[in-house]
Amino acid sequence: MALIVQKYGGTSVANPERIKKVAQRVARFHAQGHQVVVVVSAMSGETDRLIRLAREIHARPDERELDVMVSTGEQVTIALTAMAIQQEGIPARSYTGSQVRILTDNAHTKARILDIDAARLRADLDAGFVVVVAGFQGVTDRGDITTLGRGGSDTTGVAIAAALRADECQIYTDVDGVYTTDPRIVPQARRLSTVTFEEMLEMASLGSKVLQTRSVEFAGKYRVKLRVLSSFTESDNDGTLITFEEQSPMEQPIISGIAFNRDEAKLSLLGVPDRPGIAHAILSPVGAAHVDVDMIIQNIGVDGSTDFSFTVHRNDYNKTLDLLTHTIKPQTGAREVRGDNRICKVSIVGVGMRSHAGVASQMFQTLANEGINIQMISTSEIKISVVIDEKYMELAVRALHKTFGLDGEDSPNKG
Amino acid sequence: MALIVQKYGGTSVANPERIKKVAQRVARFHAQGHQVVVVVSAMSGETDRLIRLAREIHARPDERELDVMVSTGEQVTIALTAMAIQQEGIPARSYTGSQVRILTDNAHTKARILDIDAARLRADLDAGFVVVVAGFQGVTDRGDITTLGRGGSDTTGVAIAAALRADECQIYTDVDGVYTTDPRIVPQARRLSTVTFEEMLEMASLGSKVLQTRSVEFAGKYRVKLRVLSSFTESDNDGTLITFEEQSPMEQPIISGIAFNRDEAKLSLLGVPDRPGIAHAILSPVGAAHVDVDMIIQNIGVDGSTDFSFTVHRNDYNKTLDLLTHTIKPQTGAREVRGDNRICKVSIVGVGMRSHAGVASQMFQTLANEGINIQMISTSEIKISVVIDEKYMELAVRALHKTFGLDGEDSPNKG
Repeated sequence: MALIVQKYGGTSVANPERIKKVAQRVARFHAQGHQVVVVVSAMSGETDRLIRLAREIHARPDERELDVMVSTGEQVTIALTAMAIQQEGIPARSYTGSQVRILTDNAHTKARILDIDAARLRADLDAGFVVVVAGFQGVTDRGDITTLGRGGSDTTGVAIAAALRADECQIYTDVDGVYTTDPRIVPQARRLSTVTFEEMLEMASLGSKVLQTRSVEFAGKYRVKLRVLSSFTESDNDGTLITFEEQSPMEQPIISGIAFNRDEAKLSLLGVPDRPGIAHAILSPVGAAHVDVDMIIQNIGVDGSTDFSFTVHRNDYNKTLDLLTHTIKPQTGAREVRGDNRICKVSIVGVGMRSHAGVASQMFQTLANEGINIQMISTSEIKISVVIDEKYMELAVRALHKTFGLDGEDSPNKG
Repeated sequence: MALIVQKYGGTSVANPERIKKVAQRVARFHAQGHQVVVVVSAMSGETDRLIRLAREIHARPDERELDVMVSTGEQVTIALTAMAIQQEGIPARSYTGSQVRILTDNAHTKARILDIDAARLRADLDAGFVVVVAGFQGVTDRGDITTLGRGGSDTTGVAIAAALRADECQIYTDVDGVYTTDPRIVPQARRLSTVTFEEMLEMASLGSKVLQTRSVEFAGKYRVKLRVLSSFTESDNDGTLITFEEQSPMEQPIISGIAFNRDEAKLSLLGVPDRPGIAHAILSPVGAAHVDVDMIIQNIGVDGSTDFSFTVHRNDYNKTLDLLTHTIKPQTGAREVRGDNRICKVSIVGVGMRSHAGVASQMFQTLANEGINIQMISTSEIKISVVIDEKYMELAVRALHKTFGLDGEDSPNKG
């Protein structure tokens, strides 16, 4: 007998039929003797509907009141899910974030969990109940309702699992696990049976949005065993398990997956005086304009000047280009501003590259063989990212997927 | 400066435009220096939508879970109303029943209020906030969400007013007060500027459903000054004030209003043995079949047998007729069963009849003059009800309205 937390997202509870499917899965686990906690999001579309309604009243709704309103989305789902589980003949009881007492700070619409009182859930589980908890929401010490921000239901699932010391936290989504890359780009892409926590973090932040980054960090911090599964297939596959233990080198593939992202744009300031404080002088006005910067690259200076490049979200491209041209260039005395919003970022990710030399040159050679020019390079301990022309994205991903042995029948984690 | 509780029903907050109107009225009271607590229902139709959704999951939804779900209706409205009041430039804060701590018993879907903690509302009011409270809901001592049953928002308004010792509880509805009778039947019907608590109770239970009976009882118990107003007119009329003090006889009209109800059906058991326990023998199976009985009439027995009549809701007519014919008649040895579902009940109501003789005979004579046969009569201290053929209803109401001096320009309470 295990204690399992199962988290279902908005599409998994989008309508009564799907909620009944969730209840049937819960019933199967319950029949196997497991204790089950179910964490649910609002029915898909409901949160947006509520926010639209609020905007009909006030262009910039008060965040405390918005949280009171938006939190009703999950409150409806927990009741429906509990009813559906009862329909399966299993006793069930629902709890809002406030009723569990998922204590958060008071940063409305983006609150952080401070503490969870697991006593009542534990008592219900021991009495044979399935417990259904509203994701995405909590309560402050004053009793005000808060929400954790978009995607926060994953974090609720992990936090509840940590508080209950659950054996496993299962995240049900519309994909059945983490893949070596997007199967729509590379048909040979395969599901990973395991992926390390760090790889998962890199994959998530690189655009393979299976799990919310914050929930993965949370799972890492509290050592929660996290598994990604599909709520739409009845297949007997076990999804992808996110592990926190280092595997022995023999078991490690060099590269676990290829991530990509075409939401970025590249900006460069050429001929910048190479003096202390120049990076701050360039990026400080960008930050003040609420533009998030991703990659930042500055090479060594030659003859007292250097070139400085960075990437931003494509939506911020024009705004940032204006800022560089009219404000930052004159202030820094740079020679020239260049920009390109037709780029993409392709990354290879894998804890295995730590113990394998030559991974970077293997990547660069693969791209060279395909005639793809590399515009920027950025590396971390378990990831190498390159910026290339967006028209080569699919080609680059497929070539790298093949080069690093990810194509094929078997799971790359098995050998 | 006064402390005023304003309660708005579902039609008054049916959409964003109407919620803005509510906020504008609240702003006018606030500008006059009053402290205002607003109690709101769910947007009209929302409660039914939620119940339908629950029924798609489970034919007989668990009542605890149904309360979790249905209570979201008011939770959305409090947030929207608070936002709309903030839009008027006035600080506002919303509270669910659970956040106020409206403590109830644990009779889910029909809970009763046990206690209200007014401390937090009081502090907010003193700090200049308008406070918006969810009607119809509360919380048990275990922290479970409860609802008070249909119409319970009126009761919330009155209970909050009692807990805060408010100067007045204003119930905003789609009529602008209590009338001498239904203006759709009698065009000369007039709004009463005041009506006594007891008259209001009789009016409400007789089908003039301006206020929920339970809320009026609650107001009487805690001496809350209750006023019924329209949320749809901007007129300067003050609605109808429900008073608990006896007026001096000089000020009292004999009759305050004419109530009527055509939702009932009449059933009679003729030739019942006139022995102790016979009323119980007849009504006990009726109660066991979940049929509510309204009027009950038994005349003196003659020659050892008597006739027993009662009225039920028209929807229960066929069920009750079957029960009388196949079960109760054989059990009691009655001679005959008769029924009629084409009846109506017409009542004259007024505390003034206590001090005036001859009111009943005046009523009966008026009906006789119109050729209307009286089938049943039932009286209380401040009410006389008759059952007549439903086809005479309008005629009877108009004739009685005229006889008792209710037609005319001035408010009957003024003379």
